[in-house]
Amino acid sequence: MSPMTDKEAMLLAISEAKKGIGFVSPNPPVGCVILDKDRNFLASGYHQKLGSDHAELDALKKIKDTEELKGAHVYVTLEPCAHEGRTPSCAKALAQLPISSVVYGLKDPNPLVAGKGLQILLDAAIEVKCIEGLNLELENLAECFLLNMRESKCFIALKVASSIDGQIAMSSGESQWITSSRAREYSHDLRGMYDATAVGFGTYLKDNPSLNIRHGKFQNKKNHKVVLFDQEAESLKSIENSNLYQSNQKQNIHIVVDSKHKNIENILGLNILFCDFNNGYQDLHQQLFQHEIYSLYIEGGAKVLSKFISQKAFNTLYLFVGSKVLGKGLSWTKDLEFSSLSETLDLKLSQHEILDNDIMLKYNI
Amino acid sequence: MSPMTDKEAMLLAISEAKKGIGFVSPNPPVGCVILDKDRNFLASGYHQKLGSDHAELDALKKIKDTEELKGAHVYVTLEPCAHEGRTPSCAKALAQLPISSVVYGLKDPNPLVAGKGLQILLDAAIEVKCIEGLNLELENLAECFLLNMRESKCFIALKVASSIDGQIAMSSGESQWITSSRAREYSHDLRGMYDATAVGFGTYLKDNPSLNIRHGKFQNKKNHKVVLFDQEAESLKSIENSNLYQSNQKQNIHIVVDSKHKNIENILGLNILFCDFNNGYQDLHQQLFQHEIYSLYIEGGAKVLSKFISQKAFNTLYLFVGSKVLGKGLSWTKDLEFSSLSETLDLKLSQHEILDNDIMLKYNI
Repeated sequence: MSPMTDKEAMLLAISEAKKGIGFVSPNPPVGCVILDKDRNFLASGYHQKLGSDHAELDALKKIKDTEELKGAHVYVTLEPCAHEGRTPSCAKALAQLPISSVVYGLKDPNPLVAGKGLQILLDAAIEVKCIEGLNLELENLAECFLLNMRESKCFIALKVASSIDGQIAMSSGESQWITSSRAREYSHDLRGMYDATAVGFGTYLKDNPSLNIRHGKFQNKKNHKVVLFDQEAESLKSIENSNLYQSNQKQNIHIVVDSKHKNIENILGLNILFCDFNNGYQDLHQQLFQHEIYSLYIEGGAKVLSKFISQKAFNTLYLFVGSKVLGKGLSWTKDLEFSSLSETLDLKLSQHEILDNDIMLKYNI
Repeated sequence: MSPMTDKEAMLLAISEAKKGIGFVSPNPPVGCVILDKDRNFLASGYHQKLGSDHAELDALKKIKDTEELKGAHVYVTLEPCAHEGRTPSCAKALAQLPISSVVYGLKDPNPLVAGKGLQILLDAAIEVKCIEGLNLELENLAECFLLNMRESKCFIALKVASSIDGQIAMSSGESQWITSSRAREYSHDLRGMYDATAVGFGTYLKDNPSLNIRHGKFQNKKNHKVVLFDQEAESLKSIENSNLYQSNQKQNIHIVVDSKHKNIENILGLNILFCDFNNGYQDLHQQLFQHEIYSLYIEGGAKVLSKFISQKAFNTLYLFVGSKVLGKGLSWTKDLEFSSLSETLDLKLSQHEILDNDIMLKYNI
């Protein structure tokens, strides 16, 4: 075992934190790593699910002999909390230990408590510092939570599966499959990392999707929600026969319809959200937030994607590029038009993942 | 300094070899690493340009004290040559040294000499073995040379620069720039790695490109060739006014026209190749080879790309994906049509390179 640098310890804490994504919303995913006085690894932990231990306590519980904590260094991706909530204050718990330093990733984004956890540590004569050089990784890790806290809005992720030449289907509509089973499995897992999965009415009609989580690491996730974008409220007439209705609990189904249908009859008592489909998606983000949908994964089709893109009303885009060249087909931005190159949307490539011959590209707005 | 594994040494030899790409054609790029008897690094070298030392000699020259070579281990990406050509036989040179083993990457693809170099080493009681687990990297490194040797054909690389949504231009034709300056620089460097750069007649008319190498690491490369695909032989009338004609030596300019124009007047005495544009690209590869164009980098436009793709008449595709979403525009496969998903072209992702917010994806057929 060799001593770890600050950066190595924080990167490990980040990868620990990631294990909690999908299970902790609306909390942030948080990871923690503890090194002994000589900077050798002692323990790691993470916030595993809503209501369970925070990352710091999860890591501390793995240390049997508190002697080991003398002069220890604690790395945590987010400022230790100052307040007592579902769990005791982490800052207070750390302040009682003989540790020498706490290195944190991001300050608490809640201005009312930001810095309070750090102050508790400083008052206990513990050295406190912010990690340098990992801000991007840390912001990406907690991107949903940060947006939730900063803007009281739902975090919107778009997902596209295209061919090498940007097509999502043949001219005939044939699209099974553009990407590999491994890429589709990866995308299925992404559903679980968000509070809800969404599609547009066209996809609902064509694919009759259930939108729930059927396999993979989020299979046992509870209360995953689904959202249907149905501008003209056409689905309400016969939704009882759909896989979407039959595969999800009623309270988890949300239909977004255009504001002009405000007086529509809601016999089934589903969650119905109203918004202006042409210009009201920013407002929709707040409504979703109020419905406790803090993050949303939109899987298509082209029409819904184009609307979110043209209104710049999304936060991240997952593009799965399969290994086929399709030729003339259906582009996922066929409904999107810009007047000149300078008007187009410029994104930031924030992550990529090779999946055999496919690749996942994650872009932030 | 710590001892290196076989794999580490061969990977270093591969990265050495890459430095020669673009300067050694029609030879293969080759790299060599020498470790001492305890497997510590002694020297590395590579085949720098046509006519200069082979990789083994380039590395050996860096070792002043031949005592160091007692029991040494030599790693070379390609079987040491048995024959005396522009340079002395590497196998014979190695056989005279007190080295203990030679680890090679690929056997010589020429069936007439394959194994002969290895035999010379074995006869000198030197241990000889083929590296394991790096075949893909080694084949990719020497892909042009291997195709040249195996099939007497020119290696064809296609290049596309597209937006995130697969467009190469706005509907208006506006396309400067879809990708970043860093990606364009990278692509300009790729030109130099091939014997010749090509475009179609549409791009020739629209962009008036010079197709030569103006900057970057291949700036001083000599005898870079250019190829114009001009099905109807329209360029010949006024080519003297083009940047392509004015920026390149006449003997380096090649025009490919349709076979039906076989009797065309060639006043300027340019290199003219004839082929059936609808079904004759495989034959064209042999013609290019005979014209000493052993590798060709085709930069577009959509029409030429579609023809090469539909005839499966290429070996590799470089796709530069910029960071913009363009919406409805010009797709690079608009002239390509397949009847069903199972008829489409399935490629292998062989390399990728992050270029800030852009990404280069290299696919092999």
